[in-house]
Parts: sequence; C-alpha cells; structure tokens
Amino acid sequence: MTRTARELANYLGANLHGDSSVPISGVAGPDRAQAHHLIYLDSPRHEERAARSAALCVLVKPGTRLTGKTILELADPKFSFVKAAQWLMPEPEPRPTVHPTAIIAADANIAGRVSIGPYVVIEEGAEIGANTTIEAFCFIGRGARIGEDCRLHPRVTLYAGVRLGNRVAIHSGSVIGSDGFGYVFGDGRYWKFPQIGTVTIGDDVEIGANSTIDRGSLDATEIANGVKIDNLVQVAHNVRIGEHSVLAAQTGVSGSSTIGKRVTVGGQVGIADHCTLEDGAIAGAQAGIPTGKTIRSGQVVWGTPARPLEKFKEQYAWFARLPELAARIRRLEEGTPK
Amino acid sequence: MTRTARELANYLGANLHGDSSVPISGVAGPDRAQAHHLIYLDSPRHEERAARSAALCVLVKPGTRLTGKTILELADPKFSFVKAAQWLMPEPEPRPTVHPTAIIAADANIAGRVSIGPYVVIEEGAEIGANTTIEAFCFIGRGARIGEDCRLHPRVTLYAGVRLGNRVAIHSGSVIGSDGFGYVFGDGRYWKFPQIGTVTIGDDVEIGANSTIDRGSLDATEIANGVKIDNLVQVAHNVRIGEHSVLAAQTGVSGSSTIGKRVTVGGQVGIADHCTLEDGAIAGAQAGIPTGKTIRSGQVVWGTPARPLEKFKEQYAWFARLPELAARIRRLEEGTPK
Amino acid sequence: MTRTARELANYLGANLHGDSSVPISGVAGPDRAQAHHLIYLDSPRHEERAARSAALCVLVKPGTRLTGKTILELADPKFSFVKAAQWLMPEPEPRPTVHPTAIIAADANIAGRVSIGPYVVIEEGAEIGANTTIEAFCFIGRGARIGEDCRLHPRVTLYAGVRLGNRVAIHSGSVIGSDGFGYVFGDGRYWKFPQIGTVTIGDDVEIGANSTIDRGSLDATEIANGVKIDNLVQVAHNVRIGEHSVLAAQTGVSGSSTIGKRVTVGGQVGIADHCTLEDGAIAGAQAGIPTGKTIRSGQVVWGTPARPLEKFKEQYAWFARLPELAARIRRLEEGTPK
Repeated sequence: MTRTARELANYLGANLHGDSSVPISGVAGPDRAQAHHLIYLDSPRHEERAARSAALCVLVKPGTRLTGKTILELADPKFSFVKAAQWLMPEPEPRPTVHPTAIIAADANIAGRVSIGPYVVIEEGAEIGANTTIEAFCFIGRGARIGEDCRLHPRVTLYAGVRLGNRVAIHSGSVIGSDGFGYVFGDGRYWKFPQIGTVTIGDDVEIGANSTIDRGSLDATEIANGVKIDNLVQVAHNVRIGEHSVLAAQTGVSGSSTIGKRVTVGGQVGIADHCTLEDGAIAGAQAGIPTGKTIRSGQVVWGTPARPLEKFKEQYAWFARLPELAARIRRLEEGTPK
Repeated sequence: MTRTARELANYLGANLHGDSSVPISGVAGPDRAQAHHLIYLDSPRHEERAARSAALCVLVKPGTRLTGKTILELADPKFSFVKAAQWLMPEPEPRPTVHPTAIIAADANIAGRVSIGPYVVIEEGAEIGANTTIEAFCFIGRGARIGEDCRLHPRVTLYAGVRLGNRVAIHSGSVIGSDGFGYVFGDGRYWKFPQIGTVTIGDDVEIGANSTIDRGSLDATEIANGVKIDNLVQVAHNVRIGEHSVLAAQTGVSGSSTIGKRVTVGGQVGIADHCTLEDGAIAGAQAGIPTGKTIRSGQVVWGTPARPLEKFKEQYAWFARLPELAARIRRLEEGTPK
Repeated sequence: MTRTARELANYLGANLHGDSSVPISGVAGPDRAQAHHLIYLDSPRHEERAARSAALCVLVKPGTRLTGKTILELADPKFSFVKAAQWLMPEPEPRPTVHPTAIIAADANIAGRVSIGPYVVIEEGAEIGANTTIEAFCFIGRGARIGEDCRLHPRVTLYAGVRLGNRVAIHSGSVIGSDGFGYVFGDGRYWKFPQIGTVTIGDDVEIGANSTIDRGSLDATEIANGVKIDNLVQVAHNVRIGEHSVLAAQTGVSGSSTIGKRVTVGGQVGIADHCTLEDGAIAGAQAGIPTGKTIRSGQVVWGTPARPLEKFKEQYAWFARLPELAARIRRLEEGTPK
C-alpha cells in the first residue's frame, strides 16, 4: 500500500516538515531503505546513519531536522514506526484453502476462511476458528480448539484438548500440551503422576520457536491475554502467566508457579516451583528464583538465588574486591593496617 | 472403569471410613473434581480445599476425617493416588492400525498390534516392537530399533541405528541420535570428529518435548532403565545416565560425563564434560559442574562452580553481608571498631 | 574403502613402524574396534586401553610403541584420526532422487543431483543447490536459498527468504528465520516491532538439533563461514557471528550482539543484547554477559556478570572463605586476632 507522507502524518498524528507528497510504501532500517521506505530516528547517536539513508521520510522526536528529508515529528518515533509498519504492510490475508494432503477428522469443526497447509493433521473433535492459518506439518490433537485469526507456523504440535484464543501466533517447532514432569518415587521406581489437565492460552499471545508448554497435571496451565514468549522457553504444568507478561528466550518456569500481569522475565531465567512473581516484577537475565519464593510487585531481581537488583549489584561489587578485603584483614591482623 | 470405594480400598490396602459403596471412575484435583472422582489430601494446609470439593472419596493420611466424605486412610496418599489413577484410568490400548500415508521401508520389521500414525516415515531395517504407538510425523531412521509398548508422540526423530527399550515414551519434537558436537581445529578451520556411535535407551524411560540426545562419537550414549528426562534437555555424546535418575528441564550434560543411579538433577543445570555424579547425588537448579569434577554419592550441590549445598548457602549468606563486612573492616582500620 | 597401513601412512605423512600391509577400512574407539579399524592414542593415560584393543593399527605421538600393533607416528594423532576418518569413510553420495510425496512449487529452482526425502515441502521461488540433501519433513519457505552440498536432516524449518551457503549441515528440529522477539509497549499492550529482515548463513556451517535462529528485524542475522552451533542454541535477531566461531549447547545470544571470529562460547552462556565479543574471545560455560558489554580480543571470561577468568577464580576462592574472613573480622573486633 502506498501513502503520501501527508497521509501518514495524519494517520500517526505527526507534525510534518518538508515535502508532504513523498510516497511511502513500507518500512526499513536506514542502511537498506530505498527512497519510498519509512525509517525512524530516536537517538542523536544514529542521526548520521539516518541522514545517509536513501529513505526520504523519517520519524523523529520533536525538534530534529535532517536536510533533504521529509520529517514527521512524534513523541515516540519507534512506537509510531511500529504503527506505521502495521498500517503500510498489513499481514497478507491468508488464502482460504485446505491443501489436499491435509488429514482432517470428519468431525473436526473448521470455520470459514481458514488456510490449512500441506501435511497438516487435525484429529477428532478439533475446532479451528475463522481466518486462522495452520501451516505445513502442524498436528492438532483430539478436541483441541483454536480461535480466530491465529497463525500456527510449520511444525507446531498441539496435544489433545489444548485451547488457544484469538490472534495467537505460534512459531515453528513449539509444543503445547505435552505431559508435565511429575513422578512419585515408590517401590524402587518412579511412578508417573497423572498429567491429565490441559493448557489454555488467551488472545493475542505470541510463542516463539521450539518452546514447550506442558499441560496441567490435574488442572490447567494458563497463559493469559497478550503474553509474549520467546524461543526455547519451558513452561511447566499448572503454571499461570498473567496478562501482558513477557518471557525471554530459554527461560524456564517450574510447576505451579504464578507469574502476574506485565511481568518481565529476562533470558535464561530459572523460576523454581511454587514461586510467585507479582504484577510488574522484573527478573534479570539468568536470575534463579528458588522454590516457593515471592517477588513483590514492581521489584527488580537478579542473581541466583535472586535478590533485589541494587543489593545484588552492591554485593557483587564487593565480591570483586574480596582479594583486597582479605589483604586488609591480614594487615589488620599483622598490626599494619595501612 | 467404575469401582466402589470398597474395591479401591482393597486394591490400595486402605482403611475405609464412611460409605463404602460410593462409585469412583477417575481422579481429579479437588477444585475440578465431580462426585465420582477420587482426590487426595496429604497436608493439613489443603484440608479446606478437599472439604469443599465435590468429590465424595478422599485419600488421606491416617487420622484425617472430612465430614460427608468417604475416607481412605493410607501412609502415602499421593503415591496411592498415582496407583489409583493408573488402575482406574489405564492408558487406552492403541488401535493396531497403520495409516495409509505412513511410508515404511519394505524390510522394516513391524511387530503385531502396533499403531502407526499419518505421515510417519520408517526407513530400511528399522524394527518396531509389539503394542508400540508411533504418532504422526515421526521419523525412524535406518536400522533404528524400538521395543514393545513404547509411545512416540508426534514429530519425534530417531536417527539411524538408535535403540529404545520397552515402555519408552518420547514427547513431541525430541531428537535422539543427532551428531555430537565434536571438532578438531587444524589448518585454520574446524574438522568434524567422527560421530559414528549410537544411542541406547533402556526400559521405562520417559523423555520430554524438544529434548536432544546426541549419538556417541565412537561409542554409545547410554540412558539406563527408568530414567526420566524433562523438556529441552541436552544430553551430549558418550554421556551415560544410570537407572532411575531424573533430569529436570533445560539441563545440559556435556560430552563423556557419567551420571550414576537415582541421581537428581534440577532444572537448567550445566554439567561440563568428563564429570561424574555418583549414585544418589543431587544437583540443585542452575548449578554448574566444571569439567572433570566428581560429585560424591549422596552429595547435594548448588551454585556455579557447584559446592556442597550447606557450604554454598553459608557462603552466599555472607555474600549478602559483604557491604557490612567491608564497613566493619573500614572501622577497624580507622580504630573505631564499634 | 579399504587401505593398507602404508597407504594411510603416506596419506597422513606418518612414520610407520610394524606391519605395513595391515588392511584398514574405518575408524573406531579402542573398545569397539575390530582388527581392521584404525584407533588413536594421544595420552599415556589411555595406553593400556589402546594396547588391549583388537585394532591392529594405531595413530600415536612420536616415540610411542605398542606391542603387536602397527604404529603410525604423528605430531597430532587426534587430528590425523579425523583426517583418516574422512578419507576412509567418506559421506555416502546422496542418491539423487525426489520422493514422490515431496511437494515442490512449480517455480522452485532445484539443481541437479539433489536428494529430496518424503513429505518435504518446498515453497515458491526457493532454490536448492546441486548435491544437496533435504530429508523428510523439511519445510523450505518461499524464496529460501540453499547452496550446494548441504544436508538438512529431517524436520528442519527454513522460513521464507533465508539463505544458506554451501556445505551447510542442519540437524533435526532446528528452525531458521523465525520472527525475532521485539515488541514496543504502548496503549496498554505490546505491539510487534516489524520482523522483516532475513538470515544469511555462510559456507561450512553446522547447526545442531532443535536450535533457533531468528530473522533480523529490519536487517539480517548473519552467521559467517565455518561457524559451528550446538543443540538448543538461541540466536536472536540481528546477531552477527564471525568466521569459525563455536557456540556450545543451550547458549543464547540476544538481539544485535556481535561475535567475532574464532570466538569460543561454552554451554548455557547468556549473551545479552548489544554485546561484542571480539575475535578469539572465550566465554566459559554458564557465563552471563550483560547488555552492551565488550569482551576484548583473546580474553577469557566466566561468571555472571562475566569477569576475566583468573579474577573470577580468585574472587570465587575468597567467596568460599567468607565464613573464615567474617570470623577473623569478629576476632579483630574483639581484640583477639589469633
């Protein structure tokens, strides 16, 4: 879709300086942009790069000028860039089509305008909502339910009974609804605790590639609306994740832990079982949160076992000075403190 | 299968109090249970939740009473719950069927009563034991051997030559027998060390979703009977894991390390190469065990590099008090120790 | 292929002692080797194991002798063993064949002598170079380009537009080109930042099983020639990895970080966003490198946050002695320093 700089300024609510007739048909980074691409600049550090770009139209913070460019002034150029990208380059409508190699159970309930790729398997009683795209090699287990406007990239597995809301995107290789890891040791071996719960995923959730979300043992694993989960993340049985929380890559959440709303979890964080991260908590990358621990609302933690960030940093700074502290103790013992 | 409370009490060896004729047809958690579901209670903390449950029959520790419920007294209610679940809700027998889209080499050896799902590929010389279920999109490489009563969930890859025992379950997306990560640097580039060994997996092993187990370089990677491996776990070439050991999610075991029997490895643990964890050792979550290290039988370790748990905890407590220790040293230096 | 010990000695440039007519047809580890297998010995520690082996021919360091064996003396027996393995046991030429169940877009560009397995999907405009093998269940997205002599093991996903060089091997379950994890929070929810870049992978790259490499957001994620990536590794959007660098299992590299040439990254390392690891840097297992940090050329780091290895070891040694240091401070305060 091609728009003029003026149309884009109106859409975003921006102040325009320069040639308002410049045509814009997409977004790009400054180095790869062509004349008709929109770019953004949100830090003086990148001003030269923006100036050198072939792009003719730039989103900037108020007061910024770039010679020869059409300037759109906005309080948050990056956020406006995202909005512009979605406006200029909407996701292509899926072609409503069912590939002849898809194996779909006779009693599966497939809504209108769905796109089902080659070699998809949809089992008995599954439901697929309107406008949803299921790409090649996806497996939709018995009785699983997928909402509207979802997109499952190739090679996604939904075990039986799993439920997805609307506008859910799942990347290639992820597995939703596998058995939780629960055993009871007795009579010299492990007995498997029943893993007969399910997984419920809300609306507007995105899940990266090769992540795993286990079904609840007796109850459900619950992912609320707007949650974003990166690649290679593990979510164990009975975990609950609140609205608009974000989990970065390779993080693991153990059984029965609860993550509140708008929580931010960095990469490679380990959250043990029965923990609680209250609303707005932040766990820094590689943090380790021990069994049963509660992280208070808005608290920022780091380290293993996790501690408030400022405390951890102060302690870690002294950790670096341990050889010096030890030498000072020795001098005190020797009676030569300086 | 529906049983009376009396029949269940007899099966489990429980003391029954209350109405022995209550019908029981499955297990559930207290909140979701219906009248005919069995629940369990193993802590006074959850007594109210059990009392409120619609379930009519509860497994409890000796001496517990719940008004209006049929009570089965047992030393270990949770373990008995697991036994009851398996008795009341046995895994459905797979329907012995081979989907017409499965591609099976002419010389593959498929026993009776196997179930092979759609779009399965089974290569030359592979063997599948009786009563085994291979779900959609599984790939069974040349000469791989699978025992009896196994279940491969959708999208499992067995590379050529891999061997599974009986009653092995592998969850979706796991890869068994990929090449180990071994290179020798020479002449300005990495040369791949031969990765021509195999993987042998014993009986009663369960492997989670999206885990990876590499083949041995020259010998075999060996997983003994009863081992349980969670999701996203990495087991490198030539690793050996002893009977009834358990590895939680996202743990990695590097090349040629040996894990004994009944070892417990927490989540996100890193075990470097050529380590030994003796029988019954326990590595806490996120522990890091350096190259060549031995963890003695029954020892519990934590931290990176891993240390005995009690020592690590004591040291970490002092770590938290480092700012205070530093201030005390300063006061000593200034001659004002208090 | 069978060769005599003499032919092998000539090929490797080795000094031969013993029977030069011994036939050799492959390599093995000492315990499993048969008479006609080549083994190597590079440490006196393993001499007895080599002596007991059924193998008749052994690669050794100069000066080593083993009774009854044909000895090939070389400066680096392990490296020569690798070369010998590749010479004696070359990868079998793929049978150029396209399985009838492969679904290949009419305008895909498939070179000669390629092998395409069952249930492969190749979308519009994709290109596959000569002599390349694509195994079962691989998905090659629209416009993806694969060079010559590549091997994609079963169940690899290449998203649209991804480019691979020549002699690239990707193991089962890996996903190349999934959307990066980039969102902007505004108006009470996360908006997805455009993830419209691509992934370019050079020549001679090997990628393990179930790893994930995200496409660039606006630019490209770039993996240079000769890079080796282990299993379950995460490479985020816009990351660049230089020639001949090595990343061990379960390591994660966050967005826009740059890894130089011949860098070694241990297992479970976390590299935050916008980091730089200069040429030849080494990050020990489980190290955590914080946002924006630079690791200088040739530096070895460990710990979280990562520090130079020697410093970290010294500090960690004192960490272990913290209880003792605290006791010494107390004695100083009490006026009884010894």
